[in-house]
Amino acid sequence: MRTSALIAVAIVSGFISNAGAQAKPEKLIDYRQSAMTVIGWNFGQMAAQVKGDVPYNKDDFAARAATVEFVSKLPMEGFAPGTDKGHDTKAKPEVWTKMDDFKAKMDKMHTEAAKLAAVAKTGSFDEIKKQFGATGGSCKACHDDYRAK
Amino acid sequence: MRTSALIAVAIVSGFISNAGAQAKPEKLIDYRQSAMTVIGWNFGQMAAQVKGDVPYNKDDFAARAATVEFVSKLPMEGFAPGTDKGHDTKAKPEVWTKMDDFKAKMDKMHTEAAKLAAVAKTGSFDEIKKQFGATGGSCKACHDDYRAK
Repeated sequence: MRTSALIAVAIVSGFISNAGAQAKPEKLIDYRQSAMTVIGWNFGQMAAQVKGDVPYNKDDFAARAATVEFVSKLPMEGFAPGTDKGHDTKAKPEVWTKMDDFKAKMDKMHTEAAKLAAVAKTGSFDEIKKQFGATGGSCKACHDDYRAK
Repeated sequence: MRTSALIAVAIVSGFISNAGAQAKPEKLIDYRQSAMTVIGWNFGQMAAQVKGDVPYNKDDFAARAATVEFVSKLPMEGFAPGTDKGHDTKAKPEVWTKMDDFKAKMDKMHTEAAKLAAVAKTGSFDEIKKQFGATGGSCKACHDDYRAK
């Protein structure tokens, strides 16, 4: 290993406690919650434009839609076996007992987000609002079944 | 506005408290910390491969490098004026008093992460490890100056 890589590992190990083979469940829960927070922030900023609280800005909206599309692929990793408890998780046990359905709903959310990112680049604001609704619905479908209040 | 969009806004407003024009500083701090957590998790998983704690997996490594590249564009939004206090932030006041330098270091990190994502797809593991070191160094440069211990 080159010195620069060794230094990098030392740096990473200094500020990231997961720099090892075995991650603690808390780290995975923190990861999935953080990815959801990134999605939620951008979704909320898009909602403000849809509601008219702030002016619609095509570039801003499209960038946020692209972010939601990209980041929506990430949370699944955090729902690994053994991460059903700890760190104030609101994930219901059904995530793991009905994993196939849960994963299908996550995939659906990603699919809708990808459609939103596409229409955000080229579509009319009306088309964008329609697909924003579909994407929000795909979030809700999963939250209803798998997230505690 | 179409009904579907109205429903989506209602949904979003129900589970995202930032769905308005004016975000509270805590929301922006939470956002930047969450983006950093997403970066850190993926960086740590790459580090484990560089260290040899887990076997190097080209596809996994490349996907994580692409994630770090994408997500490294996000935290800057969270360092808006007025977000220097609250929510257990470790950001030093110098972030805002030396914003040009801070932003340059964030840009540098994104540039190095983009190079890592590129070499992760096509390069040898030695080349990847070298660029991983450069990317880690760009993280450290900013943390040293702008993040409290």
